Amino acid sequence: MRLSSRGEVDPFIVMDVMEAARKAEAAGRHIIHMEVGQPSTPAPRLARDRLAAAMEGDALGYTVALGLPELREGIAALYRRWYGVDLDPARVVVTAGSSAAFLLAFTALFDAGDRVALGEPGYPSYRQILRALSLTPVGIPTAAGDRYQPRPEAIPDGVQGLIVASPANPSGTMLDHDALAALIGAAGKKGVSFVSDEIYHGLHYEGRAVSALEVSDEVYVINSFSKYFSMTGWRIGWMVVPEAHVRTVERLAQNMFICPPHASQIAALGALGAVEELEANRSVYAENRRLMLEGLPKAGFTRIAPPDGAFYIYADVSDLTDDSLSFAAELLEKAGVSVTPGLDFDPRRGGRTLRFSYARSTADIAEGLKRLQAFMAARG
Amino acid sequence: MRLSSRGEVDPFIVMDVMEAARKAEAAGRHIIHMEVGQPSTPAPRLARDRLAAAMEGDALGYTVALGLPELREGIAALYRRWYGVDLDPARVVVTAGSSAAFLLAFTALFDAGDRVALGEPGYPSYRQILRALSLTPVGIPTAAGDRYQPRPEAIPDGVQGLIVASPANPSGTMLDHDALAALIGAAGKKGVSFVSDEIYHGLHYEGRAVSALEVSDEVYVINSFSKYFSMTGWRIGWMVVPEAHVRTVERLAQNMFICPPHASQIAALGALGAVEELEANRSVYAENRRLMLEGLPKAGFTRIAPPDGAFYIYADVSDLTDDSLSFAAELLEKAGVSVTPGLDFDPRRGGRTLRFSYARSTADIAEGLKRLQAFMAARG
Repeated sequence: MRLSSRGEVDPFIVMDVMEAARKAEAAGRHIIHMEVGQPSTPAPRLARDRLAAAMEGDALGYTVALGLPELREGIAALYRRWYGVDLDPARVVVTAGSSAAFLLAFTALFDAGDRVALGEPGYPSYRQILRALSLTPVGIPTAAGDRYQPRPEAIPDGVQGLIVASPANPSGTMLDHDALAALIGAAGKKGVSFVSDEIYHGLHYEGRAVSALEVSDEVYVINSFSKYFSMTGWRIGWMVVPEAHVRTVERLAQNMFICPPHASQIAALGALGAVEELEANRSVYAENRRLMLEGLPKAGFTRIAPPDGAFYIYADVSDLTDDSLSFAAELLEKAGVSVTPGLDFDPRRGGRTLRFSYARSTADIAEGLKRLQAFMAARG
Repeated sequence: MRLSSRGEVDPFIVMDVMEAARKAEAAGRHIIHMEVGQPSTPAPRLARDRLAAAMEGDALGYTVALGLPELREGIAALYRRWYGVDLDPARVVVTAGSSAAFLLAFTALFDAGDRVALGEPGYPSYRQILRALSLTPVGIPTAAGDRYQPRPEAIPDGVQGLIVASPANPSGTMLDHDALAALIGAAGKKGVSFVSDEIYHGLHYEGRAVSALEVSDEVYVINSFSKYFSMTGWRIGWMVVPEAHVRTVERLAQNMFICPPHASQIAALGALGAVEELEANRSVYAENRRLMLEGLPKAGFTRIAPPDGAFYIYADVSDLTDDSLSFAAELLEKAGVSVTPGLDFDPRRGGRTLRFSYARSTADIAEGLKRLQAFMAARG
């Protein structure tokens, strides 16, 4: 049997990094994980308790395709709580993580051959999901001086869509209201559909993140319970779409997914109420971030993007290497610290960047920084 | 914002039927549900217990994209238990239900513009998922005399793929080893990729269903924990692919889904061992089927497909109506029985067919048959 050409997606380099780290651990070494993109905390207590109770009283069969009405209402209420935005729950589409939301959004918005712009560096799966759907990703190289975010005038001609993330992965940088509004305005003028990836919302450390919904209703907003709500493996997220798009997205969701995982929807309902536990998690990230901002420069990683949110720091290491893959391998082997080379995020310039994650425990972060400092001092 | 043309999928008629039934119930009426395509039983006790324990001891973060190694091994072992087939677990891809498996299979196998054949009647989402991926479904009208399954010589020229289901939805009919081998052989000769939907395996009542893997390794086999394992809402299933395709499917899965829901994978591990409970469920379906085969003809539904497996009976009602949608509405309104008009399954001929499901309790089936008989007797 023949494989398709659209199935030829790039390998995920972070997966090879994680496998190398796993092998080192299997060989008895102790590794500090600064490569992982997920919390080490479980789903909140209230989420797990709610599911445990539901498993005893409910068959947990299919839900309607757009998700449990109570969950859609709870998500709409979050927009009031977080942003002061009045959102009709009818516009909320519960999805099997942000992954399913991207599949739905791109299918609802774009036809085969369409071109979709995205900033570089950025989340690598945007590019690969677009290709798998016979769409063409169009990279916009961004500058450290622009917080690694695209400028409104950089939206290329002839594209049908633009994906923007704030806080961004890998950089953790955010767009303020004016910058986001300028991008949405420029996209609107060009007839370019605007997709706002807000998966790291809730994880900010100084000012809060701005939602595209504070600017316009004519956008697709994608979010998830994975990061702030600490539920990566549950594969549960959501999307907010313009009112006129709901029926189309519903039909696509019915056919492509039937429904999001029912058990995860129940757990998510519990998670929405777990403010205390989730804010405690966030204060751990805040302390980790403080340690990183103090410790990374001491190790020699001085050229870093403003780490406004998420749990990443993106470092320009061009003064140290132009082969981030080998450099990451060296850090793993000699320092026992696993980090992600920039190539996944920026195929053109990622040979000169690294992403450090501070999603793990504060003790791990402290130990990792100590190792990085010792290694870099010895390296000279 | 502009909607894509591939987002223009057909409405799911069964959804409207379910909504009409829900409204009737909200208005205080008692409805027998012969429209639903899912068990009323929950996930097996062992599945729920396993997850409840895991929620206390494991953060349930992302798993690797192909699924937990232990689950892939358990699924491979099922092929030995059910079919005597020796399957390498490395070929097993755990997916977020058969829905995700279809998205992965079609993406790995077909490029935009490719044509994929499928028998009519058939599962409506095949057609809609294909369209959403910019592929062209090519219907093969099948005959009652052929058990509503395509003949090998009916595979159209110029198609890149063929989807076959046994037991089929909506008909419940199965292909025996020779018939399946003839189809796989004919597809192979034409260079047509063969996708075998085996989601109803385990739910057979006389002979067992034959897996395409008993015939060839050069096929995609799709299955799920939804039906036999009674886990629809958990969105967990699997796919077996040729060895040479594993790496491509893995990369697609990493980007399109990250991983199947971790909690559902844990529950599925428990379900694999729940033979006693699941066989008890199956004996309920067997009794329901016996009642249906006795009771439907008494009501006047005499032209039915051989109900070899699944929990459906597909009836030709062309002697009663050529508007199955109105006829189903009449059955709901006057008999209090909800059934599915054939139009979802066969856009061309489904105006003259109905699908009856016997997935619910035996008491419900008995009551539903009584109502159907009374209604049809009064209708004359």
